[in-house]
Amino acid sequence: MAAARHSTLDFLLGATVDCNAVLKALQPIFQEQGMTETVHNWEDHGYLATYIKKNGSFANLRIHPHGLVLVDLQSYNDHMKGREEVDQLLNEVEERMKELFHGNIKRVKRLPAILRGGVIDRYWPTADGRLVEYDIDEVVYDEDSPFQNIKILHSKQFGNILILSGDVNLAESDLAYTQAIMGSGKEDYAGKEVLILGGGDGGILYEIVKLKPKMVTMVEIDQMVIDGCKKYMRKTCGDVLDNLKGECYQVLIEDCIPVLKRYAKEGRMFDYVINDLTAVPISTSPEEDSTWEFLRLILDLSMKVLKQDGKYFTQGNCINLTDALTLYEEQLGRLYCPVEFSKETVCVPSYMELWVFYTIWKKPTDI
Amino acid sequence: MAAARHSTLDFLLGATVDCNAVLKALQPIFQEQGMTETVHNWEDHGYLATYIKKNGSFANLRIHPHGLVLVDLQSYNDHMKGREEVDQLLNEVEERMKELFHGNIKRVKRLPAILRGGVIDRYWPTADGRLVEYDIDEVVYDEDSPFQNIKILHSKQFGNILILSGDVNLAESDLAYTQAIMGSGKEDYAGKEVLILGGGDGGILYEIVKLKPKMVTMVEIDQMVIDGCKKYMRKTCGDVLDNLKGECYQVLIEDCIPVLKRYAKEGRMFDYVINDLTAVPISTSPEEDSTWEFLRLILDLSMKVLKQDGKYFTQGNCINLTDALTLYEEQLGRLYCPVEFSKETVCVPSYMELWVFYTIWKKPTDI
Repeated sequence: MAAARHSTLDFLLGATVDCNAVLKALQPIFQEQGMTETVHNWEDHGYLATYIKKNGSFANLRIHPHGLVLVDLQSYNDHMKGREEVDQLLNEVEERMKELFHGNIKRVKRLPAILRGGVIDRYWPTADGRLVEYDIDEVVYDEDSPFQNIKILHSKQFGNILILSGDVNLAESDLAYTQAIMGSGKEDYAGKEVLILGGGDGGILYEIVKLKPKMVTMVEIDQMVIDGCKKYMRKTCGDVLDNLKGECYQVLIEDCIPVLKRYAKEGRMFDYVINDLTAVPISTSPEEDSTWEFLRLILDLSMKVLKQDGKYFTQGNCINLTDALTLYEEQLGRLYCPVEFSKETVCVPSYMELWVFYTIWKKPTDI
Repeated sequence: MAAARHSTLDFLLGATVDCNAVLKALQPIFQEQGMTETVHNWEDHGYLATYIKKNGSFANLRIHPHGLVLVDLQSYNDHMKGREEVDQLLNEVEERMKELFHGNIKRVKRLPAILRGGVIDRYWPTADGRLVEYDIDEVVYDEDSPFQNIKILHSKQFGNILILSGDVNLAESDLAYTQAIMGSGKEDYAGKEVLILGGGDGGILYEIVKLKPKMVTMVEIDQMVIDGCKKYMRKTCGDVLDNLKGECYQVLIEDCIPVLKRYAKEGRMFDYVINDLTAVPISTSPEEDSTWEFLRLILDLSMKVLKQDGKYFTQGNCINLTDALTLYEEQLGRLYCPVEFSKETVCVPSYMELWVFYTIWKKPTDI
């Protein structure tokens, strides 16, 4: 894959270092490569040496006097030979450093090279902001809908992954997500009325339809998500999205807010409401200012169409965003009717972080 | 945490660019920061501008003529203000680029900053060589035993993680691993004779002892792994490692090869052999040259102490290392006795990659 490869090699030393001695020891390695040196020497902050090669590659050698030596190497190439040259150079730097410090180095760290600017983007940070690289090898679908950017990328291990506006939504490996948001196998959907908010990947719909419900209504705002998923996420949705109407289900391509309002007005009630909207839901009618108020609006409307003994399922957030989880739970105390809730932490394979799912129900009234 | 923060910001453009125009547009942003510029201009490979700040920070602006602009910013600081300054600078670069190209940019990518040279190392690449950042916030244990480096690091979401010579072995969140290597709940261990090879974290021992086996013998070479885990991995091992001998178990601190040979000679037989050795097993008696021959030796010896209707469980590898998995399966065809096997792919939370587990049994003889 043609991309810039950014390689790093870091040395954490036990004590302060003689910056000039490190520079003198390492500079021949770069010079032997025919690289041109430029050195900057701070009064109190050590050295930065930049090495430039004729082929467009360059290296930085940053020597911090308190005992940290960082090497960066950036090259643009898509052939193995270039990679081997980089590895060879970094190996030589590592050997020289070990000789210089007689192995007295606290840590040597060489990260997997970062691929920058390639056609395929392998880096999709977690919800808690960590850097993770996926084994993406193909861009299967990449379109902008009126609502969001929709990507479906192929991962060798997870199958196709749906990514909405940069957020990893669901991979074909992620039945664990669908099971969790359906109540982890503890519910009996047979003969029940079910409402799905969002869920455009079709995973929930596909799994519930197997369980012989009376009727499932799914309300998805974005036709293009459905179009992409029915073609490329078939391990998730099977054939359920091939038609927007089946024996026991219908898919409405609409914003869920007006639909919820209509159902509430009509007095239509459901045994289960499953909120599978994106983390920050999109809507054509954002009457409320903040995300939290909007989330509460959806919750309130959902409670209005939920039977007294019904259940509301939703995904929460990654387990590390404790503040966001707490805020969400606070919203639950501010609905028009009193509710109770439980939560469960689930490992969704493609997420690379643990995820919290909620079950919410109306507080039983006193008899 | 005091560490160097390495920030990146990449622009993938749709077409070739005027390198000089990009440089002229962006250089005021760096100069306003009081950064000193050095520019290198290749004949065919575009520009590299290096910007140096008095406080020891520096930036690289690499402009590739075919339409790739890469910004790197390295600074050493542990205060929020420094981070905000970096974000501010990158925001300005992003705005200027969008103005310059009128939003005609294929991709803008800003990765989470990489922390380099800090006391806590958050980067533990997967077995298939991908870069992943863990939410490590504490070094709980870090010692060199005669056999390996043993680290136990605390992850906010996974609990304590055992890392042996740089390989993530098991986290307190990883009951899924222990269940998989015990046969995924399909085995009846009651009254059975079990042999565990390795398993120093105590997870398998702890889970099997609950199931009332006749006797479990665990053979772990490294006392220090046991010492670390019994103190810091208690969600995994409970109290089972507090004593090396219990009502229905014993732990031998020995190399498993001579133990297996002894048992084979004595004719001692087991219902279950569970191989939980590290991916590249360590031994004090490496009679065999290659890793594969060594793995085969362990397999052969294990088959010698396995009852005719017994089962051998082991972890294989990450699902993406297909060549290694194939080679492993080839070894199974070269044992002293014919065997059959099945495999299962499991999501182990802290691994960030899917893992393959094997069940191996002696081929039933014709009656």
